[in-house]
Amino acid sequence: MAAAAAVSSTFLFLAPNACSSQTLKPPSLVHFRRTASAVAFPRLPRLVPVRASVAIEKETPENERPETFLRSADSPHGDAAAAPTTVRARFERMIREVQDEVCAAIEAADGGGTFKEDVWSRPGGGGGISRVLQDGGVWEKAGVNVSVVYGIMPPEAYRAAKGEAKAAGGDSSVKAGPVPFFAAGISSVLHPKNPFAPTLHFNYRYFETDAPQDAPGAPRQWWFGGGTDFTPAYIFEEDVKHFHKAQKQACDKFDPSFYPRFKKWCDDYFFIKHRGERRGLGGIFFDDLNDYDQEMLLAFSTECAKSVVPAYIPIIERRKDTPFTEKNKAWQQLRRGRYVEFNLVYDRGTTFGLKTGGRIESILVSLPLTARWEYVHQPEEGSEEWKLLDACINPKEWI
Amino acid sequence: MAAAAAVSSTFLFLAPNACSSQTLKPPSLVHFRRTASAVAFPRLPRLVPVRASVAIEKETPENERPETFLRSADSPHGDAAAAPTTVRARFERMIREVQDEVCAAIEAADGGGTFKEDVWSRPGGGGGISRVLQDGGVWEKAGVNVSVVYGIMPPEAYRAAKGEAKAAGGDSSVKAGPVPFFAAGISSVLHPKNPFAPTLHFNYRYFETDAPQDAPGAPRQWWFGGGTDFTPAYIFEEDVKHFHKAQKQACDKFDPSFYPRFKKWCDDYFFIKHRGERRGLGGIFFDDLNDYDQEMLLAFSTECAKSVVPAYIPIIERRKDTPFTEKNKAWQQLRRGRYVEFNLVYDRGTTFGLKTGGRIESILVSLPLTARWEYVHQPEEGSEEWKLLDACINPKEWI
Repeated sequence: MAAAAAVSSTFLFLAPNACSSQTLKPPSLVHFRRTASAVAFPRLPRLVPVRASVAIEKETPENERPETFLRSADSPHGDAAAAPTTVRARFERMIREVQDEVCAAIEAADGGGTFKEDVWSRPGGGGGISRVLQDGGVWEKAGVNVSVVYGIMPPEAYRAAKGEAKAAGGDSSVKAGPVPFFAAGISSVLHPKNPFAPTLHFNYRYFETDAPQDAPGAPRQWWFGGGTDFTPAYIFEEDVKHFHKAQKQACDKFDPSFYPRFKKWCDDYFFIKHRGERRGLGGIFFDDLNDYDQEMLLAFSTECAKSVVPAYIPIIERRKDTPFTEKNKAWQQLRRGRYVEFNLVYDRGTTFGLKTGGRIESILVSLPLTARWEYVHQPEEGSEEWKLLDACINPKEWI
Repeated sequence: MAAAAAVSSTFLFLAPNACSSQTLKPPSLVHFRRTASAVAFPRLPRLVPVRASVAIEKETPENERPETFLRSADSPHGDAAAAPTTVRARFERMIREVQDEVCAAIEAADGGGTFKEDVWSRPGGGGGISRVLQDGGVWEKAGVNVSVVYGIMPPEAYRAAKGEAKAAGGDSSVKAGPVPFFAAGISSVLHPKNPFAPTLHFNYRYFETDAPQDAPGAPRQWWFGGGTDFTPAYIFEEDVKHFHKAQKQACDKFDPSFYPRFKKWCDDYFFIKHRGERRGLGGIFFDDLNDYDQEMLLAFSTECAKSVVPAYIPIIERRKDTPFTEKNKAWQQLRRGRYVEFNLVYDRGTTFGLKTGGRIESILVSLPLTARWEYVHQPEEGSEEWKLLDACINPKEWI
């Protein structure tokens, strides 16, 4: 489990939560730009040196969405428009469809705002689509991103992931080289304006390694990860139940152990340790999943991603026009401050993305439009604000 | 230099910027509270386990400010009220005076708000005073904290700081034990409401080691650190010049090399790497300073700290009532978002404080009351907002 986490972290950092897509290249392929000072980076360097041994290729803006971000070798017969057959191609097709569905549902419910789209690619393959709706009728900020990454991981991470020291064909004396990998993910954060309308986050991702470059016969690996979680500023039991039921329904179609296990995983992951609080009321979260049939997990991820609209939009429709006071708004803003704290301090996708020079605007689109920090704010015991805080400190079973 | 930084970081993390005072104890002195789950911390644990080998003693709220937070052994003849003679006692006296002066000047200029005071101590010695003025006439949030820490650092950090492997009396085969240290600091962040009135941050700190516990003859070490920096949302040349001149004047009384050196250090430290921008227009910053006469550095730190009021308040008086638009306010809020990013992602005092269980409300009082993040916000070239951003990307010589 710990071994698997090593790779998963690498992956998590590369694609997920905040969609920080980036291509890692081994040192030999990289030209470092030299700067006069270690601190005075040029404003938009093409290549940003990262740690000692890795650098990140800068993205290239594109005017049009390509049919696929896969390398042509990954598309059937090199034809991007043909029906996808590989898992990587089918996963990309799925997240692009979900991006379209979610954005259409958001625009329809928003009744005014439209998504601004940014498309980019990387010279070595991969790319992404960021869509952001800002200052709409219902949402303050809504980001829905997909990305595809071709990268190279250090051999140690690959060996650790395999749980053995001899990944390179069974002979531990053979040193495997860097391991090419593929990652694709959809990531979204939706922050409404009305303090009674909840924030939603979801992220589904797929990760695959190739054989190490100098050990072509070694086995490939793959993992799925993701989750959908729910962050209201006020508790409406019917909303929380509806949301969690939708997660449980998606899970139960595949394995009755999934919902309880992934619900707890979610409560554990979105923990703001220095506050002793979760950022919200949870949902489901899973990572490093590969101990089930690959087709089953692809179908499960698809089911979860397709559940976002029915899990969330009915709640928004109920709450978007609820009258509220300044006090309600200030409380929502304080909880948004907690959201910022979690994302900047703990979220693995965000913190790694910031350190490694991913597309900053895509990474930080997860932050709310506005947030607030009051010194020693303590809601009155028994108040609606206190009930929310209590549920963030002591996670509940909602269904 | 790298060796000194190792200790300085330890110190920086313990007292400074955000005043996260805490007492580190070696494992043998600590009782860990056991919790049912690794994640489900109780809400207010008395002791929070930190990493494998260190835990932090929880602070105790006090109803009254003590005359000193020093241990009685550190006060002359054990009499806390007597005139201080040691550097640690004189430094504490200085920062407490500066806290009073700055708070009085802020309240006078604010014309309405008053500081709320929280005092705490720790059973093993040390403590602090947090003062926060929130939602005043002029300031949105103003925090001025002092703290005193008695702690224990790992011997490796002490040896690294000494720049040699044989700190324990000259014989490298003798393993020195943990090294007791003393730290005291004042830390303040002042965020005004008016977008034309600048944010100010200052922090001055003093650090001393005792001899290692099992090597009583080994030499003691001491360091000074600190700085004052300036973060406007709009540039008024006369303000920036006035502010930097005040820093230079304080520096020039002691060494003509100080201002240029500490000005550059400040530009380098307050760098938001993922943005390629500084958080503001700089000032001075220094750390690990011990290669001058100790009395001289105490006087220098005192001069810098006493310069805060004349460097800052005249600017506030000029700008606090300047009429502004919604656009001005939104820009200020975006820059406040950058402030949050720097403090939560890079500031060593904040990030370490959050990880090690310092007094969270004191650590995070540096965050603004409100902040904002817009997707791909780019000021129009040549605009006032653009000029500020340009000066954050390309630091200027102001005087």
